[in-house]
Amino acid sequence: MNLFIVNYIIGLVLQFEAVFLTFPIIVGLCYREYQCCAAYAITAVICLVLGFVLRRRPPTADNLYLREGFVAVALSWISLSIFGALPFVITGEIPNFIDALFETVSGFTTTGASILPEVEGLSYANIFWRSFTHWIGGMGVFIFMLAILPLAGAHSMNLMRAESPGPSVGKFLPKVRDTAIVLYAIYIGLTLIGMTAFLIGGMNLFEALTMIFGTVGTGGFGIYNDSAASFTPLQQNLITIFMILSGVNYNVYFCIIYGRLKEIFSFEEVRTYFGIILFSGFVISWDIRHFYPTVGERLRHAFFQVGSIITTSGFSTVDFDAWPQLSKNILVILMFIGACAGSTGGGMKVSRILILIKSVQEELRRIIHPHLIRKKHFDNEVLSEETLRSTNAFTAIYFLLFFVSVLLVGMDELDFTTNFTAVAATINNIGPGLSLVGPAHNFGVYSYFSKCILIFDMLAGRLELFPMLILFMPSCWRKY
Amino acid sequence: MNLFIVNYIIGLVLQFEAVFLTFPIIVGLCYREYQCCAAYAITAVICLVLGFVLRRRPPTADNLYLREGFVAVALSWISLSIFGALPFVITGEIPNFIDALFETVSGFTTTGASILPEVEGLSYANIFWRSFTHWIGGMGVFIFMLAILPLAGAHSMNLMRAESPGPSVGKFLPKVRDTAIVLYAIYIGLTLIGMTAFLIGGMNLFEALTMIFGTVGTGGFGIYNDSAASFTPLQQNLITIFMILSGVNYNVYFCIIYGRLKEIFSFEEVRTYFGIILFSGFVISWDIRHFYPTVGERLRHAFFQVGSIITTSGFSTVDFDAWPQLSKNILVILMFIGACAGSTGGGMKVSRILILIKSVQEELRRIIHPHLIRKKHFDNEVLSEETLRSTNAFTAIYFLLFFVSVLLVGMDELDFTTNFTAVAATINNIGPGLSLVGPAHNFGVYSYFSKCILIFDMLAGRLELFPMLILFMPSCWRKY
Repeated sequence: MNLFIVNYIIGLVLQFEAVFLTFPIIVGLCYREYQCCAAYAITAVICLVLGFVLRRRPPTADNLYLREGFVAVALSWISLSIFGALPFVITGEIPNFIDALFETVSGFTTTGASILPEVEGLSYANIFWRSFTHWIGGMGVFIFMLAILPLAGAHSMNLMRAESPGPSVGKFLPKVRDTAIVLYAIYIGLTLIGMTAFLIGGMNLFEALTMIFGTVGTGGFGIYNDSAASFTPLQQNLITIFMILSGVNYNVYFCIIYGRLKEIFSFEEVRTYFGIILFSGFVISWDIRHFYPTVGERLRHAFFQVGSIITTSGFSTVDFDAWPQLSKNILVILMFIGACAGSTGGGMKVSRILILIKSVQEELRRIIHPHLIRKKHFDNEVLSEETLRSTNAFTAIYFLLFFVSVLLVGMDELDFTTNFTAVAATINNIGPGLSLVGPAHNFGVYSYFSKCILIFDMLAGRLELFPMLILFMPSCWRKY
Repeated sequence: MNLFIVNYIIGLVLQFEAVFLTFPIIVGLCYREYQCCAAYAITAVICLVLGFVLRRRPPTADNLYLREGFVAVALSWISLSIFGALPFVITGEIPNFIDALFETVSGFTTTGASILPEVEGLSYANIFWRSFTHWIGGMGVFIFMLAILPLAGAHSMNLMRAESPGPSVGKFLPKVRDTAIVLYAIYIGLTLIGMTAFLIGGMNLFEALTMIFGTVGTGGFGIYNDSAASFTPLQQNLITIFMILSGVNYNVYFCIIYGRLKEIFSFEEVRTYFGIILFSGFVISWDIRHFYPTVGERLRHAFFQVGSIITTSGFSTVDFDAWPQLSKNILVILMFIGACAGSTGGGMKVSRILILIKSVQEELRRIIHPHLIRKKHFDNEVLSEETLRSTNAFTAIYFLLFFVSVLLVGMDELDFTTNFTAVAATINNIGPGLSLVGPAHNFGVYSYFSKCILIFDMLAGRLELFPMLILFMPSCWRKY
């Protein structure tokens, strides 16, 4: 383990955080929340100084191998969250540090699970920072860094691999930095278009800004106690549209920008993603027919919740925990499927599910024709043994972590539905679960021990398991 | 698809069933239940005649390939269950055919889930048949056939592969028939020793006979309404011991018989199996300390339930649904782990879990040392890519089937815990779940549609997924 380069990268990330922390200061100044401004300023200074300390010894060689990349990303996200939680503690609005850390990790990982019974009691600066963490974490802080700095030369791909979601990294362009720039350009473009649409739809600037952060980042922190219920039907539909658009593989937008429109239809994953949304949306809107008088209302609530859960955003317009069991079951399954790879959404990703189904078909085919060897295809390309193996290993780790977490969280003596969906909602970075962690409740019911487990699950889910788990391998820390 | 040989095998299985059906006739004669005797006699005659019809055209070639083996095993188990359900319907004790089929499939697959609110109302012949189906299904009807008949020559291994549990078939001896004979000899030996122990422990002959069927078959149908609660502490401890012994890989007994005692300690799976039992048993007996006054009682109930769930038997001495959440969570996780491969138990099998953990470690190791190739070992042997791939595919199919079943069963509008544990309890061939399908309740709450889904899950779980799923592949039915 080359600890110099890891320290150097963490220092860099903390300095970037100092820059991010100036935004809530501006918001605080606008709303005359001077105490908040001070809290954010103090935190920013701490990050800046600590960043300099960590970076005082520049790495001798730029050997950023996969191992260092994964460790640097995991530790950076942990540091980012620890310091991001400080303003909540300093302002006294979330006095307990574990609670504040839960809220911040939930923000950066775009989970949107909250321990707060009331959001509206927070100051504007804190509400803004909560939502802004979604936006930072959505596309990822490393991709941002890679877009700005000419970092670590040839091996910087390893940072991107560790941070971006999905079984393989979409490398649009041969250079890592160019890819990062394109990704952030699309991300910023989507944010601006969405914000404009929200403003036209009648939101005020603060609403539009904070809601679009949670929408394109697929986060889910609301700014009102009732999440998205108090917005007008038009505004809710706009949120639905931008949530669903944010769950699409960014390759699609890349193809649109570069005029390669024909290729769009070749993305199996995206076709399946829209298919699942349409199917689930219509089934649920039929299932909830006794709850809402008009077809329009049923469709609006059904598609909002489906879009919110499959993209792992976690906003809600109604308390879907009160819906019929079939609808709830569909939503729980969508929690696990998640959005497309290469989007800001979480979950297992549609492409992994497709690859799993293909490997299942292959296994059955081998029984029927044991001697016929056939290559599996995905998006018109041959699926490599490497991708298959790592997808299968991902699935195994995913379910192992899932069950261990349910077991540990279960010590709090809450009911099984609460524990099961709490872990599902955090590991998949969704936000609300069912029962005691349903949309009308919050994660404050859990003990601090369970909150720490769920914090780990959120980080593991966002970074796709491997970076967080590798920290526990003794051989990872051994010297070369 | 060579349908002749498939028909021939189904015919053979039905004729074997006719022989099995004479046993409840004897029990019925002993207890003067002449109406029951008639019902079993009628069913036996139907099986015998249908068997002759199906076997009228002997297969021209003995080409029993893997495909035919899997289809024959799947269809035979379905036929076995359909005709095994008839006596319940004819005697009118379970008048509805779907209910009777559920009960019979639950018997043959050694699940032990019941739709009956009261067991004690049944006639002795029916109670005996319920428990006897556990014993037949435990080791498997094909292994019985292979032990008796010189069947289908060189390819008969394919029948064994389709029926016996675990990621690979333990072939003790070079000849399939010899292996089958040894397996049944161990099985019968364990049954006789257990029955003798039960008799010495104070059970009457009927109790000892029926309870040992459910114990060594890891079934779980009780003969009293309260499952195993009304037995004496000594009898309960005896049941615990024989349940746990029945969940051990039969390779161990093979080694004991052939005096290869040193090899016993090399079985990683068996060591892990006993480790899990000890760990779970002690944790639960600590967790339930407020429920029972003495340490002896806590240990007895904890180990009985742990042994019952990990071996997927499903007997209970107490209503563990009332236990603290931690204990319930451990039991739910044990449901999925299951017993050893090569035993009569269900679940994913300890060896599969070990192989999964090894492939996870390997995947993490690859990140740390991308260029170091190392072979994984299991039981001192190198794990083949084939075993790894098929274990991963098994896991994927398992969870896909699991989630689809929870979704479909969820249409009944029961609570999530009920649906989740009902599917877990049937797919893993355990018996009781939690909440509305807990030990104090039964599966009668479900609609006929859901019962059919659960029937499928029980069969798929017992036959380890592939034989049942292959029936749905169109290419399976195509002619050569």
